[in-house]
Amino acid sequence: MVNRMHKRLLIPGPTEVSAEMLREQTRPLIGHRAQEFTDLYVGIIKKLHDFFQLSENYQVTVTTSSGTLWFDIVGRSIVKEDALACTNGAFSERFGKAVQGCGKNVDLLEVEWGKAVKPEMIADKLGSGEYDTLTICHNETSTGVRNPIYKIGKMMKKDFPNVMLTIDSISGMVGDKLLPSEIGCDVIFASTQKCFALPPGLAIGIVSDQALNRAREVQNRGLYTNLVHLFDYYEKKHQTPFTPNIALLYALDKRLDLLLEETADGVYKRHLAMAEYTRNWAQKHLALFPEPGYESVTVTCVKNTSGKGVKELNEELAKRHYMISNGYGKLREQTFRIGHMGEWTLDGIKEVLRHIEDIWGFEK
Amino acid sequence: MVNRMHKRLLIPGPTEVSAEMLREQTRPLIGHRAQEFTDLYVGIIKKLHDFFQLSENYQVTVTTSSGTLWFDIVGRSIVKEDALACTNGAFSERFGKAVQGCGKNVDLLEVEWGKAVKPEMIADKLGSGEYDTLTICHNETSTGVRNPIYKIGKMMKKDFPNVMLTIDSISGMVGDKLLPSEIGCDVIFASTQKCFALPPGLAIGIVSDQALNRAREVQNRGLYTNLVHLFDYYEKKHQTPFTPNIALLYALDKRLDLLLEETADGVYKRHLAMAEYTRNWAQKHLALFPEPGYESVTVTCVKNTSGKGVKELNEELAKRHYMISNGYGKLREQTFRIGHMGEWTLDGIKEVLRHIEDIWGFEK
Repeated sequence: MVNRMHKRLLIPGPTEVSAEMLREQTRPLIGHRAQEFTDLYVGIIKKLHDFFQLSENYQVTVTTSSGTLWFDIVGRSIVKEDALACTNGAFSERFGKAVQGCGKNVDLLEVEWGKAVKPEMIADKLGSGEYDTLTICHNETSTGVRNPIYKIGKMMKKDFPNVMLTIDSISGMVGDKLLPSEIGCDVIFASTQKCFALPPGLAIGIVSDQALNRAREVQNRGLYTNLVHLFDYYEKKHQTPFTPNIALLYALDKRLDLLLEETADGVYKRHLAMAEYTRNWAQKHLALFPEPGYESVTVTCVKNTSGKGVKELNEELAKRHYMISNGYGKLREQTFRIGHMGEWTLDGIKEVLRHIEDIWGFEK
Repeated sequence: MVNRMHKRLLIPGPTEVSAEMLREQTRPLIGHRAQEFTDLYVGIIKKLHDFFQLSENYQVTVTTSSGTLWFDIVGRSIVKEDALACTNGAFSERFGKAVQGCGKNVDLLEVEWGKAVKPEMIADKLGSGEYDTLTICHNETSTGVRNPIYKIGKMMKKDFPNVMLTIDSISGMVGDKLLPSEIGCDVIFASTQKCFALPPGLAIGIVSDQALNRAREVQNRGLYTNLVHLFDYYEKKHQTPFTPNIALLYALDKRLDLLLEETADGVYKRHLAMAEYTRNWAQKHLALFPEPGYESVTVTCVKNTSGKGVKELNEELAKRHYMISNGYGKLREQTFRIGHMGEWTLDGIKEVLRHIEDIWGFEK
């Protein structure tokens, strides 16, 4: 069933996971209502607090789900009536649609794919005073665009302090340096198969006290999407309300040890070095898709000016045991994406770029 | 962090998982939009179809979540306005509350803990004609009671064909013989850490065409809880709409091979043999908690008539590297529960029961 010739993943998630980290999942299971589990889980929460340098008005949780569950959590537990959804790619569009699917009113702040959402665009829309929540993608996996969330957070804290700032950072968190207390966001989330370099199956959500207070006012939050229940249960029992993926939590625990050792700053610098190298390479041989100055540090979206097929490139790379990603949706052949995240290092990225040069006959 | 002296789990989930099965999770990851993944996932869906002998009007899916997500899926995608929730234990109560939390009207058919919900009780309530959905727990993990869902299904098909029959079989499915086409249910679900004997993190949901048609009529289904999107996406792409837990799907694929080899009937008979032995043992030394004739085949709830502490029993068992479960909630010391499910065999159960005899000084 599984391919015998493994291709090392440079797609923007799932990313490559080391054999060592995969093996962490094979520890014997424990009961999720036992003291051993409490020790494991409380330790993970503490490590997440430390890594993200959370101030006292933030809490963090881990859900057994894809990152997508958090679209519904925002839709069910944060948005009261009206949300403004910033869209500049496929995932931010999906975030907005999910909130709408939860029965809330959603207006779109539509920005062209490849361009970033700027604070002034948001301020302009929020000025009407009709929105209680903003949704935005920090790192648009479909276009490789990184929205300026620190600036957006600063503007919102100053001018719209009661509008909840909810951020999908599924493919950015950890690789890009994210300090929720500095951004001033209310909800920010990611999943394990991106920069955490683990299999998919868990999502990490960081939530402000203000967001939790808001959630208490929102009706019909459900159960699996009920943010209040999640945090109340943890406060009371120091466990998860529903049976969590214990095997993957073992691996997350180990991953956090490694991340803390490397430090948030160290992890960011490693990702930035990979991103800058890839960008320079792309500009030399091809072009970049994102608006200059707004390029992601975890996934580079390259404009395919070669006249050659992305599909064929990936077929050739497969023979060399690598896999990158074609463009997303309508950008399938116009762009390709290299996910330089998680366990990847600059040397590994240099190697795969050399393979592309070789396959497409670029000048070295 | 992890206990070095592993206790073999006889709690009603998570159950013990073999090292072999845990190792299945360590295969290298693949992209969830790649052909390799489609092959894996379509294979799993086909094996589930085969194992549950599904007729053409049923579909099956796998969600990356705890089983609990399905309470929300029922609440968001199946219940139009009014549900009748049958409650006879902690989990069936939670099911009803979850649907209520989704903003639907829920009336309770309350049955004493330890007793079963009978078809005539349901018929009596549904007679009012005001309900569009029924929720029930097949196998109440908190009390070890097995509700007669085949009889309930037959009655509902005959007298209330438009009321959706939604069943939580989280701790029953696979160990107990469940043929959805014969039950005639509309939604039935379970999770991987019970009789599938895998780590938690995936849930399996089987859904009738009638349920899917109903879902199309329900408003505000959200995204992660949107049953229509789940199945439409599969029909179109033969993949999951959100990044799934690929590592655990590898293990599920292998588990299904083993289950198909043992056959649904063989798995059931093995579980029944363990249940009958445990029941006889309990009746000889102590007593059974469930109403006679309605005992679960996957978890036996023993009435603790010993005058001795369940907590202390489990502490002694821990020294012998076993872990059973205390009673649930208010039954904590009045009962204890032995989960004989998944990979356990009669010999293993005999051994743990001998240890209990020894600890409590029962006559052999």
